[in-house]
Amino acid sequence: MERFHLVCRACRKSRKFQLALERCSCGGSFVVEYDLEQVQNTLSKESLLERPSTMWRYWELLPVRDSSNIVSLGEGWTPLVRLHRAEKALSVAKLWVKREEQNPTGSFKSRGFSAAVSIAKEYGVSKVAVNSNGNAASALAAYAAYAGMEAYVFVPQDCPGLIVEECVGYGAHTVLVYGLIHDAGKIIQDGKAEQGWHHVGTLKEPGRAEGKKTMGLELAEQLAWKLPDVIVYPTGGGSGVIGMWNAFRQLKELGMAHGDLPRFVSVQEAGCQPLVDAVQAGRFAEQNSDVTSAPTGMRVPNPPDGDWLLSILRETNGTAVAVSGEEIRNASIHLGKLGISSSPEGAATWAGFCRLREQGWIRPHDEVVLFNTSHAMKYMHWPVKNVPIVKNYADWVTHPRRM
Amino acid sequence: MERFHLVCRACRKSRKFQLALERCSCGGSFVVEYDLEQVQNTLSKESLLERPSTMWRYWELLPVRDSSNIVSLGEGWTPLVRLHRAEKALSVAKLWVKREEQNPTGSFKSRGFSAAVSIAKEYGVSKVAVNSNGNAASALAAYAAYAGMEAYVFVPQDCPGLIVEECVGYGAHTVLVYGLIHDAGKIIQDGKAEQGWHHVGTLKEPGRAEGKKTMGLELAEQLAWKLPDVIVYPTGGGSGVIGMWNAFRQLKELGMAHGDLPRFVSVQEAGCQPLVDAVQAGRFAEQNSDVTSAPTGMRVPNPPDGDWLLSILRETNGTAVAVSGEEIRNASIHLGKLGISSSPEGAATWAGFCRLREQGWIRPHDEVVLFNTSHAMKYMHWPVKNVPIVKNYADWVTHPRRM
Repeated sequence: MERFHLVCRACRKSRKFQLALERCSCGGSFVVEYDLEQVQNTLSKESLLERPSTMWRYWELLPVRDSSNIVSLGEGWTPLVRLHRAEKALSVAKLWVKREEQNPTGSFKSRGFSAAVSIAKEYGVSKVAVNSNGNAASALAAYAAYAGMEAYVFVPQDCPGLIVEECVGYGAHTVLVYGLIHDAGKIIQDGKAEQGWHHVGTLKEPGRAEGKKTMGLELAEQLAWKLPDVIVYPTGGGSGVIGMWNAFRQLKELGMAHGDLPRFVSVQEAGCQPLVDAVQAGRFAEQNSDVTSAPTGMRVPNPPDGDWLLSILRETNGTAVAVSGEEIRNASIHLGKLGISSSPEGAATWAGFCRLREQGWIRPHDEVVLFNTSHAMKYMHWPVKNVPIVKNYADWVTHPRRM
Repeated sequence: MERFHLVCRACRKSRKFQLALERCSCGGSFVVEYDLEQVQNTLSKESLLERPSTMWRYWELLPVRDSSNIVSLGEGWTPLVRLHRAEKALSVAKLWVKREEQNPTGSFKSRGFSAAVSIAKEYGVSKVAVNSNGNAASALAAYAAYAGMEAYVFVPQDCPGLIVEECVGYGAHTVLVYGLIHDAGKIIQDGKAEQGWHHVGTLKEPGRAEGKKTMGLELAEQLAWKLPDVIVYPTGGGSGVIGMWNAFRQLKELGMAHGDLPRFVSVQEAGCQPLVDAVQAGRFAEQNSDVTSAPTGMRVPNPPDGDWLLSILRETNGTAVAVSGEEIRNASIHLGKLGISSSPEGAATWAGFCRLREQGWIRPHDEVVLFNTSHAMKYMHWPVKNVPIVKNYADWVTHPRRM
């Protein structure tokens, strides 16, 4: 039996693993499941001691068959830094920051793309494409370059300029799109047959969610297999939350972690807060217009797997909070003075944490983990130059400066 | 006997470890030496397996007495990434990039300042100051903030703006200085008694060199204790080279590494190449004027321990090369297309490597390690705002916007 296969979340039908993820005939979405008995033959707390300091230390729980296909730039196993001074000031037992900006492409997106590009390599793919608010684009650009694949990245026209610069620096075909992240995704959808693109967008293939799962595996190992009480995570598409939830579930089944799952807190920026609204309303509603928040990784009006996200927040007794742009800016200044540079997403988790601590939702005896998902510098204002800007696929095909 | 003490490099006189480094009465410079028999009681290849993934895994070889004084943001244990495609294209056995930009402050300087600020904490210091071309300044700013110390950083007026922004973000008193790095250093020298600054400049205290030493310790461990044939390192003050040379020497004495030391190659940018000139002339000459190179970590006209550096290049059969600004820009584009974003210093090592491979100095069977010492983004053009700019200490004392 193969080490991994796909299972429909809704009807539990299983099928052979494949490169592109489609919906099940019942309408449910597929997830990767592993033969945990097989996994247990080689994966243990002890065997991990001699493994490389990248997310590939957990190769048994990642869907790549032949290790020669692993495309690794040194992603994962990022530091978990304790904020002693803040613990005292805010009366909380333990407060950690997971520093995902120390990944090779300066954000947690390195993980998903290391996995996705490795799988693509295993299937002989040569052209990859992604829609993104920014960090996923530069991550795909880097991993594709390292693997010798051609990358096409489509980002909203207000994507932070330094991230656009990164994509161009890795030699990716880089395009700005009028609209939001789903408008950029439509271009890939419309063009993929004609262009031969492998679509590496959220939930379009199995690698990205699996790569992000390693954040949870790492967190458990770094905390000596005792899960924290609360995880505060900046949430856009939410595959980070889904990935970590999945990680903890698998570790519990493997007998490597015990006890309750952490309460997941999703932080969003006011102005694009579908998850916060859904927690209040009890269900998801489409939100296509009236998006007023800044172009960060949290700005995803219609998270493709929103209901799953919502069920995780409920199941773990978690919640969702929206913080303002001003709260984010103040949080960033505060964290800087504690020695931690933070992206807007990372600063948002500090703002969310402070709010919930003040309200008593986070309690004095809690152990809390914040995620700084991306490098501070990426979000400084940088004017974009020489990159084509398009409305749709037809527009791109005919653009004179198609890079 | 204490685990560590100071020894004069010239007359071998030893003395008790202390916070500030002064010259020996014979004129020689002091280095930290360790009681290696004591070190061997706990440090071994096996014991390292269970240690944290930071440079503090080598605590026995770092001069901090009480582990509660360690100021760590998750520095060190950075990835070593193999460039398979480039190995084939350029016919070299093994080619690696050590990704120092993945340190917490985006450069290798995190190491030296984690050590220096830890020592400062052990001695009860509350105000620290440094002169720097940039990355040392932002590193001091971050570590001081985390430790709750006040930081004063002095950088040349053409310091990359994003690095200045980092310093300000960490809450450091940040000042631009007309002139070069030694002009900035003079301000600290002139003001330290009056201001109560602990001077953390190159060779002013023992921590920075010891912290950088961990690059060598790590390299040896990551390559399974077999040292590489060639190390190509971007050289300014040169304490990285001195540190790694020291690391290999200590590992050999400990019986943890064997064989010849790597041939060290120092890369500089044409326009400030005192080391390249010294290798050709056989000795160092002062170079204060006519500096025309860009403001990177390599621009140090008068490396304080230049003769030591030169002797290391000779002893290891190494060399020094100067590459042009244009070669550096092209190297950066080339590395980007291989999936590696590089700072000018890192790109310079690629340019130096290509030159030496072409000349046959680097041979087909060599194993070569390049160092990308800093984050690519830091060097993008960014206008500096709201930071005082001064000529000298008197100027600073009276400046209306002294931050």
